[in-house]
Amino acid sequence: MQQGQDRVFAGIRCTGRQHIGNYLGAIQNFVALQDKYECVYSIVDLHSLTTLTDTEELQDNVRETALDLLASGIRPEETILYAQSHVPEISELHLLLSMVTPIGRLMNVPTFKEKAKAQPENVNYGLVGYPVLQTADIVLYRANKVPVGEDQLPHLELAREIVRRFNNIFGDTFPEPEAELTSAPMVLGFDNRKMSKSYGNSLDMAATPEETFQAIRTAITDPQRVRRNDPGRPEVCNVYTLHGFFGPENQPKINSACRSAEIGCVDCKKMLSESVNDYFGPIRARREELSANPEAVDEILIDGARRARVIASEVLADVKDAVGLPASLPEMANVNA
Amino acid sequence: MQQGQDRVFAGIRCTGRQHIGNYLGAIQNFVALQDKYECVYSIVDLHSLTTLTDTEELQDNVRETALDLLASGIRPEETILYAQSHVPEISELHLLLSMVTPIGRLMNVPTFKEKAKAQPENVNYGLVGYPVLQTADIVLYRANKVPVGEDQLPHLELAREIVRRFNNIFGDTFPEPEAELTSAPMVLGFDNRKMSKSYGNSLDMAATPEETFQAIRTAITDPQRVRRNDPGRPEVCNVYTLHGFFGPENQPKINSACRSAEIGCVDCKKMLSESVNDYFGPIRARREELSANPEAVDEILIDGARRARVIASEVLADVKDAVGLPASLPEMANVNA
Repeated sequence: MQQGQDRVFAGIRCTGRQHIGNYLGAIQNFVALQDKYECVYSIVDLHSLTTLTDTEELQDNVRETALDLLASGIRPEETILYAQSHVPEISELHLLLSMVTPIGRLMNVPTFKEKAKAQPENVNYGLVGYPVLQTADIVLYRANKVPVGEDQLPHLELAREIVRRFNNIFGDTFPEPEAELTSAPMVLGFDNRKMSKSYGNSLDMAATPEETFQAIRTAITDPQRVRRNDPGRPEVCNVYTLHGFFGPENQPKINSACRSAEIGCVDCKKMLSESVNDYFGPIRARREELSANPEAVDEILIDGARRARVIASEVLADVKDAVGLPASLPEMANVNA
Repeated sequence: MQQGQDRVFAGIRCTGRQHIGNYLGAIQNFVALQDKYECVYSIVDLHSLTTLTDTEELQDNVRETALDLLASGIRPEETILYAQSHVPEISELHLLLSMVTPIGRLMNVPTFKEKAKAQPENVNYGLVGYPVLQTADIVLYRANKVPVGEDQLPHLELAREIVRRFNNIFGDTFPEPEAELTSAPMVLGFDNRKMSKSYGNSLDMAATPEETFQAIRTAITDPQRVRRNDPGRPEVCNVYTLHGFFGPENQPKINSACRSAEIGCVDCKKMLSESVNDYFGPIRARREELSANPEAVDEILIDGARRARVIASEVLADVKDAVGLPASLPEMANVNA
């Protein structure tokens, strides 16, 4: 990173195939940021271990996530795209930051409390440390810009606190990362809850046209529109909202046709399906191409990890030096490091 | 480690020069264990960061600790002696074990509660995770024997719980480490509290004869023996107890001479000083030799780290495989790993 140049870091959860809500809320933005900044994007497989105990599909999910990102327009020749577990420096920095992060602060993070409630049988130390690992991710590259929505500002604030505390104790080592605020729309799933893989109310970006229609046809529309001839209220209908994302040019027509019961929900959903299929058509085609050559995708991630580690190892050496640890390790001729 | 062979692991806190209580309570035993087992001894500089924020002397303290261990008879050609921060695999394993360690269990560890009380301004996440890091230390070498005193059994039990939980979730990966119980005497300092560097009531193994006497002369004896001619009670006198460790052959004589006020406390302390100086004489001489060549000591630690990492990287690969992470990292030609 040249002096004064901005570097963006974002972590992407490897829940496998990304859904259209992920695309609108995050991926689209990650793609756009490449035009303005140097970007480092990590597929955070280690983070997923905080809530996951069945990890059989973890590596497949990393690859599926990478496919969605690459197909969406992440450019691996400029952007560093890698899997978190390929960069062991993250674990070292996580441990060092753990020494300056107040436990009380972590126990009060609202998302920790929510998750602890959701998995009371597995409230583990790693789950508490989720924000420490997030902070390590960011500062391992001295990234100064983090794309977040309003709802994630408290997490970034915690990262900034950890950074300040570290800098106070051990000397100025990291920049305080700043929010690169994004206006990510809140995308509802077909049951009108937040779209989420775990709710089973989502649609994968990579779905086939047929799968797309099958998912959209389950969408809740205006509950008062019971019969085909009842007039509908687009303003309470998530299908109408989704039209706004994927085919805004159709909205005026649908708005009046729905209110006059000229168009039924099934036809409206067919139109949405077509718009979604058109919207993701080129991405799905690129994904198809990429997935025909999984070794090439693995190689992209490996290359990303190599480039990530060049930065990470330099920063970690500075950190260790600041902390009073030996900055470099003994050379390990026989060890696959 | 050959099939069925035992491996001992112990961590040694790098508080700098070790005191005579450390020697009697731990080091002596570490030396003896080498005759029976393959031993891995780690100078735990990372652990020290849980309570330390002024780390300027950390690396000196590692070296001083190594000097005391080597002078006492740790044989680096057989035993693996290294500094914890030289083996980065520990941080990776720490993070992975953090995912299976219940936070509630950690918050209830009595030593955590004590330390949290002692440093209320710095109750950090790393301090809570102290036992996770301890467990990672042990199982990174699949060590099955851990030398502990009775008082440390609860810590080992926690390590065994973490191991069981990991094995349950991810398949049989680690042996459950067992206690190699040692009868470590509780050594009191010269103010009759537990001997501890932080209390300023201790005597370094490596002290000079003059320093030895100056420290011992401050020792509290029988508080009822106010005047030289008062008879003393050896059974309440720590100096008498210390004679038992360093010059037991003198105890019968001192016992009667103290009770009859034939010998005064100053003379008794002089005798103890001589015994301590005789006892540590050969160790101090070896230490002197070793410390004349600090590069050689560093090289011993580096060599130990190399050998440690050969084992650690193999075990970590197995762990990652069990957890569903890629077992090996991309090769990093340009990275100083």
